[in-house]
Amino acid sequence: MFKFKNIEGGVTAPLGFKASGVACGIKHKGGKDLALIYSEGPALTAGMFTTNKFKGAAVIVDLKYLKNGDNFRAVIVNSGNANASTGEQGIKDAEEMATLTAENLGVKKEEVLVSSTGIIGKKMPMDKVKKGIIEAVEKLNYNGGVLAASAIMTTDTKPKELSIDTGIKGRGNKTIKIGGIAKGVGMICPNVATMLVFLTTDASISKDALKESLHIAVNKSFNRLTVDGCMSPDDTVLIMANGLARNERIKPKSENFPAFTQALTFLCEELAKKMASDGEGATKLIEVKVKGAWNDKDAHRAAKAVANSALVKTAMYGADPNWGRIISAVGSVKVKFNPDKISLKLQGTSLIEKGKFVDYNEKELSVSLKKENAIIIEVDLHHGDKETTVWTCDLTEEYVKINAHYTT
Amino acid sequence: MFKFKNIEGGVTAPLGFKASGVACGIKHKGGKDLALIYSEGPALTAGMFTTNKFKGAAVIVDLKYLKNGDNFRAVIVNSGNANASTGEQGIKDAEEMATLTAENLGVKKEEVLVSSTGIIGKKMPMDKVKKGIIEAVEKLNYNGGVLAASAIMTTDTKPKELSIDTGIKGRGNKTIKIGGIAKGVGMICPNVATMLVFLTTDASISKDALKESLHIAVNKSFNRLTVDGCMSPDDTVLIMANGLARNERIKPKSENFPAFTQALTFLCEELAKKMASDGEGATKLIEVKVKGAWNDKDAHRAAKAVANSALVKTAMYGADPNWGRIISAVGSVKVKFNPDKISLKLQGTSLIEKGKFVDYNEKELSVSLKKENAIIIEVDLHHGDKETTVWTCDLTEEYVKINAHYTT
Repeated sequence: MFKFKNIEGGVTAPLGFKASGVACGIKHKGGKDLALIYSEGPALTAGMFTTNKFKGAAVIVDLKYLKNGDNFRAVIVNSGNANASTGEQGIKDAEEMATLTAENLGVKKEEVLVSSTGIIGKKMPMDKVKKGIIEAVEKLNYNGGVLAASAIMTTDTKPKELSIDTGIKGRGNKTIKIGGIAKGVGMICPNVATMLVFLTTDASISKDALKESLHIAVNKSFNRLTVDGCMSPDDTVLIMANGLARNERIKPKSENFPAFTQALTFLCEELAKKMASDGEGATKLIEVKVKGAWNDKDAHRAAKAVANSALVKTAMYGADPNWGRIISAVGSVKVKFNPDKISLKLQGTSLIEKGKFVDYNEKELSVSLKKENAIIIEVDLHHGDKETTVWTCDLTEEYVKINAHYTT
Repeated sequence: MFKFKNIEGGVTAPLGFKASGVACGIKHKGGKDLALIYSEGPALTAGMFTTNKFKGAAVIVDLKYLKNGDNFRAVIVNSGNANASTGEQGIKDAEEMATLTAENLGVKKEEVLVSSTGIIGKKMPMDKVKKGIIEAVEKLNYNGGVLAASAIMTTDTKPKELSIDTGIKGRGNKTIKIGGIAKGVGMICPNVATMLVFLTTDASISKDALKESLHIAVNKSFNRLTVDGCMSPDDTVLIMANGLARNERIKPKSENFPAFTQALTFLCEELAKKMASDGEGATKLIEVKVKGAWNDKDAHRAAKAVANSALVKTAMYGADPNWGRIISAVGSVKVKFNPDKISLKLQGTSLIEKGKFVDYNEKELSVSLKKENAIIIEVDLHHGDKETTVWTCDLTEEYVKINAHYTT
């Protein structure tokens, strides 16, 4: 694995990106709710979106714009209102958000993408949004990454951003940088679910290479993330590459493609872990590792069954080494293995070895579960050589509180 | 639909059944933890069990005994310890439970079935169980149904039993009766999950007919029940038919087969609803009805997606008509329908009509959700003529509390 250098700046770390985050009153409770990310030059852009049959208006608009064009200059994002299940009017509002942003930036309306997150089924307060866009454009700056990260939050307790220097050489003493901001944190499940992620890079890269690289990175990161098994209509991952590092253009077969993809994957994994740690009401990150699976699908299915088990998640919250719930979850899904051959480790402590129950110190393990912020569950199916990791968080009273009273 | 008369007695309502429930110290917190159901004559017995790859010792033993014989005299059931993931010793203990019960009853050991529910992975305290069995046999009586119902409870807050007079004529002035007891209430998901159900009837019925009738009833009731999407290694539904009503033997094609099956289905549905209402921490029963589906699988998949959605369940707990979460859940699974044509009703109030959003009084609906103990969600996919109903409950802080500290 390459080592990547963490740097400051989030989405504004790569060359030529500015950002801003403002409060325009979409959120009833106040706080920043409109983010703008802007590239000084045209940026090749690729996206991945929710697979939910109900798609938010912004997703529908972005899919159309991305079909018609490859290069974009900006993305405008609001939190507090998902602009989903809002019918024709919702589509018009999403397009108007792009148009207004483009006008204020002095670019073409087809060069601006749009994204929304928040409550489903409420009309966008366009008057507020209009004023907000003007302010967001005025406040664009090279250190705006962290403000944009704050402005896309909904029930997130902290902004999530990361930027790295990939070490891949550009022209002169430049190196390719990648930055990203993300928001979770409920309704999260594999296949990209209420989750917005915006990635920027100054890499020069071909369309094929950018798409492929994003696919690999998302499948190894956000698609392995689950908070509550629910999938939102608004999930979006966008990457903008403006080429300002002036490296030799990366193509799918070029030497630097694997390095760029590894760097992007690393960044996305770290953002995914940040999202799991900040899952609604979460007190702990849970990392579920499954190995020895017959194929990738089995590995993923078994890991997801454990990660989505309300009983496993509550047990981890209670620092309770209730391993019966873990193997019950594995046994409940269609996965090839012999239940008498399974191995299980919890926080490094071996509980089952090839079907044999190991004598372990329950109190000690419970104390260690209580102490740590990250819990690692390792299942070895001993039935093949495929493996995966899925990230989730514990299930707490706070999750229930947050979600029992979200709209009212 | 036939009308069935509710009668007293639970599993001891049908002729020739006795039952008891005693406290023998398996549960650390005390309380009844051993139930015995006994038939005065040989009872034709059929069972359905968990599909989890990890099966509890009692399930493994019952599967063996039911393979070798059709007629049974008793079933001994303990709560407080699941006798699951207990290896060879667990199997021995389960067999010994059957043997000891048989000895005390004066019947053959292969005529007694056994069932366990509770904590996974702990050795059965056989000394306590032995004493308990002696007491349970001594205390058998014709009014013991309710005591047996209490003794199989784990986190259930109330015993669940029901008995009905089917109205189907037996010899003389006898009519066929069916009784049942059940326990939930966590780790419940379709395909029979931590859930024990014991059914008795004095019907005379052939093996084929009993099996088929049970299959139909379970698929329309317990397999449509979900509390937390988790599946236990111990789930069991058993039915014992001792023939003492002396009716003309019911066969798969005989006139009374549909009536018997309807009666059994009705009883099982009512028990399933009792289980959902008493889901861990639940304050409300939620009934999810899906119609207009392309096929049965789609209907079930859509209904289950809604019923298992943590976001829907928390919203219902908060009496929050957050219908966006309902349609998001439907949209997240592989089901054929056009999202622009869907209809949705919540507690009888129309929210979406063929894709058009209906103006409704949010406050009024919220008040009605708060007031009622049962919430009905109706989704019409307008894509076919198949329909189903799935039962679940709301998700509350109490669910988390119960499950965060179950073993320790």
